Amino acid sequence: MAKITPRASDYSRWYLDIINHAKLADYAPVKGCMVIRPNGYALWENMQRVLDQMFKDTGHVNAYFPMFIPESFLKKEAEHVEGFAPETAVVTHGGGKQLEEPLIVRPTSETIIWDMYKKWIQSYRDLPMLINQWANVVRWEMRTRLFLRTTEFLWQEGHTAHATAEEAEAETRQMLDVYAHFAEEYMAMPVIKGRKSEAEKFAGADVTYCIEAMMQDRKALQAGTSHNLGQNFAKAFEVRFQDRDGELKHPYSTSWGVSTRLIGALIMAHSDDQGLILPPRLAPTQVVIVPIARDEDERASVLAAAENIQQQLKGVGVRVKLDDDPKQKPGWKFAEYELLGVPLRLELGPRDVAGEQVMVARRDIKGKTALPLDGLAESISALLESVQQGIFERARDFRDSHIFEASSYDELKTIIGEEKGWVKAFWSGDPEDEARVKEETKATIRCIPFDQPETLGSCIVSGKPARYQVLFAKAY
Amino acid sequence: MAKITPRASDYSRWYLDIINHAKLADYAPVKGCMVIRPNGYALWENMQRVLDQMFKDTGHVNAYFPMFIPESFLKKEAEHVEGFAPETAVVTHGGGKQLEEPLIVRPTSETIIWDMYKKWIQSYRDLPMLINQWANVVRWEMRTRLFLRTTEFLWQEGHTAHATAEEAEAETRQMLDVYAHFAEEYMAMPVIKGRKSEAEKFAGADVTYCIEAMMQDRKALQAGTSHNLGQNFAKAFEVRFQDRDGELKHPYSTSWGVSTRLIGALIMAHSDDQGLILPPRLAPTQVVIVPIARDEDERASVLAAAENIQQQLKGVGVRVKLDDDPKQKPGWKFAEYELLGVPLRLELGPRDVAGEQVMVARRDIKGKTALPLDGLAESISALLESVQQGIFERARDFRDSHIFEASSYDELKTIIGEEKGWVKAFWSGDPEDEARVKEETKATIRCIPFDQPETLGSCIVSGKPARYQVLFAKAY
Repeated sequence: MAKITPRASDYSRWYLDIINHAKLADYAPVKGCMVIRPNGYALWENMQRVLDQMFKDTGHVNAYFPMFIPESFLKKEAEHVEGFAPETAVVTHGGGKQLEEPLIVRPTSETIIWDMYKKWIQSYRDLPMLINQWANVVRWEMRTRLFLRTTEFLWQEGHTAHATAEEAEAETRQMLDVYAHFAEEYMAMPVIKGRKSEAEKFAGADVTYCIEAMMQDRKALQAGTSHNLGQNFAKAFEVRFQDRDGELKHPYSTSWGVSTRLIGALIMAHSDDQGLILPPRLAPTQVVIVPIARDEDERASVLAAAENIQQQLKGVGVRVKLDDDPKQKPGWKFAEYELLGVPLRLELGPRDVAGEQVMVARRDIKGKTALPLDGLAESISALLESVQQGIFERARDFRDSHIFEASSYDELKTIIGEEKGWVKAFWSGDPEDEARVKEETKATIRCIPFDQPETLGSCIVSGKPARYQVLFAKAY
Repeated sequence: MAKITPRASDYSRWYLDIINHAKLADYAPVKGCMVIRPNGYALWENMQRVLDQMFKDTGHVNAYFPMFIPESFLKKEAEHVEGFAPETAVVTHGGGKQLEEPLIVRPTSETIIWDMYKKWIQSYRDLPMLINQWANVVRWEMRTRLFLRTTEFLWQEGHTAHATAEEAEAETRQMLDVYAHFAEEYMAMPVIKGRKSEAEKFAGADVTYCIEAMMQDRKALQAGTSHNLGQNFAKAFEVRFQDRDGELKHPYSTSWGVSTRLIGALIMAHSDDQGLILPPRLAPTQVVIVPIARDEDERASVLAAAENIQQQLKGVGVRVKLDDDPKQKPGWKFAEYELLGVPLRLELGPRDVAGEQVMVARRDIKGKTALPLDGLAESISALLESVQQGIFERARDFRDSHIFEASSYDELKTIIGEEKGWVKAFWSGDPEDEARVKEETKATIRCIPFDQPETLGSCIVSGKPARYQVLFAKAY
């Protein structure tokens, strides 16, 4: 059986062991790239399905833009090129010849999309333009980690254009809410919504909003971002529309994205030393049925009952697998499906069949209970909801008990230094104070939470009057 | 209103006009690349949804492999590198530095996938490996055409590994059948299944099977291919598994793919001088309801009835849109939805409401008929099936009446030269005879159909005894 390093002894090793043993991903022969294996990709497909529907329900449509961007495009928005140019992959040759202008493999698509919007947006009637793209992107990273930071990754990027600043701001906030809803209701991962500081915002944005989640090692993970780009890209690409009043104006824009890093977040938010723990709403298999029989006679009757249960559960939309492989022992299967994070395991032996019951083991808590076969579809559906809720609450309680309000800089340094958790503290808003914390503790301002106290104290670093209460943490 | 060049005056122009006016795609600022606009991408999403389910129903799972392939990988399979090296895009710089080994942007993924299979396949228990990937690929093309041939395109590529040659052959044929089923039952596009000649097969395959469709200009379009790769890639990447008998053996492999070129095929198979004609099973909108009213009183009652119809149709799973935009006239809307290829249009005015009926116009044939509101959901569902069947039969009749059995090479040259259609003729199997036809007429052997006559005559080119009856045609 797979041996997983316990979290307590080496958290990073534990994370990689889970990915390896559960066959979620593998290192690729190209530096910094990964292969997303079928078990990992199935999680991404479920995330995509849910998110895509949420995007459509909020009026967005999908499209596809080229992955090659002329080098000159990147340079049109000053902050944008500064942020992204150092980490690009560059195509210099095509079809056996050197290219006149090198092509950048997209690190993000604002520039190529706004070059097209220039063609498509002429009038207020063309607005809002609400387009999303599912794509691969490349950022040349020095230090990579499977799912969390890879040279190539998969993501979605929404790019919208609006007639007014107000509409763009409303869109930016709406999409942050969509991400927060997805993280909490589907990933069962509590998040804090807030705004990035100037130092941490997206290169080219006026404002970046984010959702931040706490992992089990108490580090922060940025799980999604939504940017209000103001008129920056419209101006850089000279996009103008004729408004209702006849005036030519630059539209306002937003962009927002989440990526395959969410799979890493999902692993680190819930899993334990036995393997993955998956939220039922995203688990590829929600219920596994393991029949238990000592001989062929028992096997026939147990299998018939198991197939009956499988049909019942399928009938109410449960993703259920019946593992009747006779070559593996039940004990081996129990460990295997624990490793894979299947939320519920049903064990069915001859005595269960005779007693018209089944044994149910939850992946998230220890122990087994008997459930009557009568009304099983309903009780299993309720139990899946209970697991979903249970792991959310456990993650929320864990997070809430690891956020500390610090009142002195020494206290902050101790909490961060000993990796006790996040620090909630007052900040002057001065980038120099922010930079000092980063330099001295490696913690960054994860966000300025929307939820601010009524009165503010003084900056934890400089003692100056505070502008915000913020969250400091080390982050992935 | 959009002016579409008639097919009869300039078929190529007609094709581009449809794409432009129906907003399916646009040229990108990078040579040979395209932007798939929301209307075009919605078609791709519907194709993906259906195909993906078919792949899963036949036991396949999805995964994702890196798009960068070390240059040395491509060289490991001799025929493969010869076929693909000339049309690659090459990344030479990453993160501001020149790379030690250049990276190829995948033109297809056999090499990177077999490098991983080497790691994953150890025993017969690891087989069969049935993996599919949805991805973008790049082939540096000289002459491009939207959807049909672009430098970057989207596709799926299946890559499977098997313990025996028989299993690999069965898989190759099964996936060709899946493609043929999809083309005929969903795209309503009749196809001929067959095998490629040695000259036309995939670089690295033992055998390539294909489905070929006839477009309205009587050219052929290869709509999907399925390759039996034998042990070629297993040997090139030194992949071996321990079989049941304890022996170390190379597995057998297949690969198979369809791409966004299918959107081009869909356009050219059915559409007319008024715009797109879409098969109901893939149409993003299957039914549009256009309410007609002269004043506000009429408008209220007509809209209420229209909304009622919309709910009824939604209830039976019809993708229906109600266009109640008061700023556009009904006539403008009729033309717009004809352009967009919506299979059925319902017109509803006050007299229709009073008479408890609705006028129905099919996109594929002229004229309107009245349908009673009573039982409308059933009659509309039946009508959608009838449109699906109708455009399939029309395309099949068109194709069948444009395939000519030629008995002399002069006859072949006339039929191809005058672009009358395809030529069915006998071929010796000699590549020289095949090459002569290509050189002198620009027609290629599209396939050696599975369906062969009982007796064969003599080769249409050389008069030598024939090995096959084949289809000659000019192709996209």
